Amino acid sequence: MKILVKLAFVGTHYYGWQSQKNGRSVQECVTDAASKLFGFECDITGCSRTDSGVHANEFCATISQKGKTEILTTIPMDALPRAINCFLPEDISVFEATYVADDFHPRYNVKYKEYIYKIYTRPARNAFFAHRAWHYPKKLNVDAMNEAAALLVGTQDFRAFMAKGSKIVDTCRTVVVANVIREDDTIIFRIGADGFLYNMVRIITGTLIEVGEGRIEPSSVETIIKEKNRSLAGITAPACGLYLDKVYY
Amino acid sequence: MKILVKLAFVGTHYYGWQSQKNGRSVQECVTDAASKLFGFECDITGCSRTDSGVHANEFCATISQKGKTEILTTIPMDALPRAINCFLPEDISVFEATYVADDFHPRYNVKYKEYIYKIYTRPARNAFFAHRAWHYPKKLNVDAMNEAAALLVGTQDFRAFMAKGSKIVDTCRTVVVANVIREDDTIIFRIGADGFLYNMVRIITGTLIEVGEGRIEPSSVETIIKEKNRSLAGITAPACGLYLDKVYY
Repeated sequence: MKILVKLAFVGTHYYGWQSQKNGRSVQECVTDAASKLFGFECDITGCSRTDSGVHANEFCATISQKGKTEILTTIPMDALPRAINCFLPEDISVFEATYVADDFHPRYNVKYKEYIYKIYTRPARNAFFAHRAWHYPKKLNVDAMNEAAALLVGTQDFRAFMAKGSKIVDTCRTVVVANVIREDDTIIFRIGADGFLYNMVRIITGTLIEVGEGRIEPSSVETIIKEKNRSLAGITAPACGLYLDKVYY
Repeated sequence: MKILVKLAFVGTHYYGWQSQKNGRSVQECVTDAASKLFGFECDITGCSRTDSGVHANEFCATISQKGKTEILTTIPMDALPRAINCFLPEDISVFEATYVADDFHPRYNVKYKEYIYKIYTRPARNAFFAHRAWHYPKKLNVDAMNEAAALLVGTQDFRAFMAKGSKIVDTCRTVVVANVIREDDTIIFRIGADGFLYNMVRIITGTLIEVGEGRIEPSSVETIIKEKNRSLAGITAPACGLYLDKVYY
C-alpha cells in the first residue's frame, strides 16, 4: 500500500511541482517533509507537472518508501495531514490522506481534472490578488466568453491550444466542463477534461480574453480548433492566475 | 481640498497602520508612495489604527501636502489609484480616490465601520489561508454563535470586550450588524458599529468561539456585557483573521 495525499499549495515561490536543479519545487518540499515525518527516505509522485507560479487547490501525490512501491507506518491516515504539515512550509498544506494499492499511479490513473483561471478586472490592482490572479483591467463580456467556452466541450483535437515545442503526438482531449463566471471584480474560467496539453488552459484563457474584449468572435473558437494552428489562438495567460482545482481517479 | 483614498492591504508583513519606530507600517509605505508620486512630502492620516498583522479590504486615508490641509495636483482622481500603486509594495493597493474638504478627518468623521473575522476550521491548515485566517480546527456551532452575536446588537457598554490598559472612558458603542456565516470550511463573523474599543472584535471573536464549542451558553453574552468584566469574555483572537471591511462617512 502507498499513501495518496491531497494537497494545496500557493505556487508563487516555487519552480512548479517537479523537482528542478535551478530552484525549489513543491515536490522537493513534500519529499523532505515525508522523509522527516516517517524517518526514512521517501519517493513522491505527483498527478501532473505544474509550471512555475501555478497554484493548486487540490493536487494529488503518492508517498512510498524510496525505491519501493509501498510504505509502512503506524501513523493513522486521519492524523497524517496535520503531522506532515508541521514539516511543510506554510504555503504548502496536505488536507487528506488515504491508502491506495501498490500499482496506483497518481498521474496515469487520473480520469478527470479541473482547472480554474482567475482574472482580476478592476482598473487598479488588488493587494490580496498579488500573484493569485491575472490583473487584466479591462471590461470583459462574460456572455461572449461563455459562448466561446461552450465550443470547447467535446472530444476534439486541441493542438491549436498547445505550446509550441511540446512533443505530444495525440492531441485529442475530452473537455467536459468549460464555463466563465463573474464573482465581484473577478472573472473565473473553469475547465474540466480527461487530460490537458502543455499550456492548454493558459492559451485558452488568452483566447477567451480576446473574445471578452470583442477582438474575436465567440464562434471563431470553432475555427481555431479546426485549423489546429497555435498562431490563431490568443496569448499564453500568465501562470499566476492558474489553479489546479480538482483531480478525480 | 485633500484627497481621500480607499486602500486594501495584506497586513502580514506590517506593524499595523500607524507609523512605528520598530518596524515598517502601512502608513509609512503610503506616505513614501504619495511623496514620490506628487513630488513633495505628504501627510497621510488613516481612518483607524490597526494592529500588527491585521488586514484591510477597505481602509480610508487622506493625503495632503506636508504641514498643509490641502493638496495641489494635476493627476485626475480616476488615474490616481493606478499611479500611486506603482510606488506601493504589492501587498498594499489603492482602489479609489476622491477629493474631500480641507476639514474632513478620516478618523473623526467615520459614521460606521464593519470588520470581518475569518476562522478556518478544517483539521489540517490550508496554504491559502496562512496569515489570512485563524486556523481553529474544531467543530463550531454556527447557530449558537449567531444567537450570541445577535445579543451584541444595540447601544451598549462594551467594556467587557476591551483590552485591559486601554484609556478610553466612554465605552458605549452602537453595534448595528453582528452575524456569523459558514462559507465552505471557513466561518466568517461580521460586525458593524459606529466605533470599536481596543481589541473589541478580537475579544468578541474569542468569546463567540467558546459559544461555538459549547463551553458557554449564547445567552451568557448578555451577562458578560452587563458585568463589564473582561475576565468573563473569551481570549483575544489572533490578528491574522481580522479584516477592516467597510468604512462609511
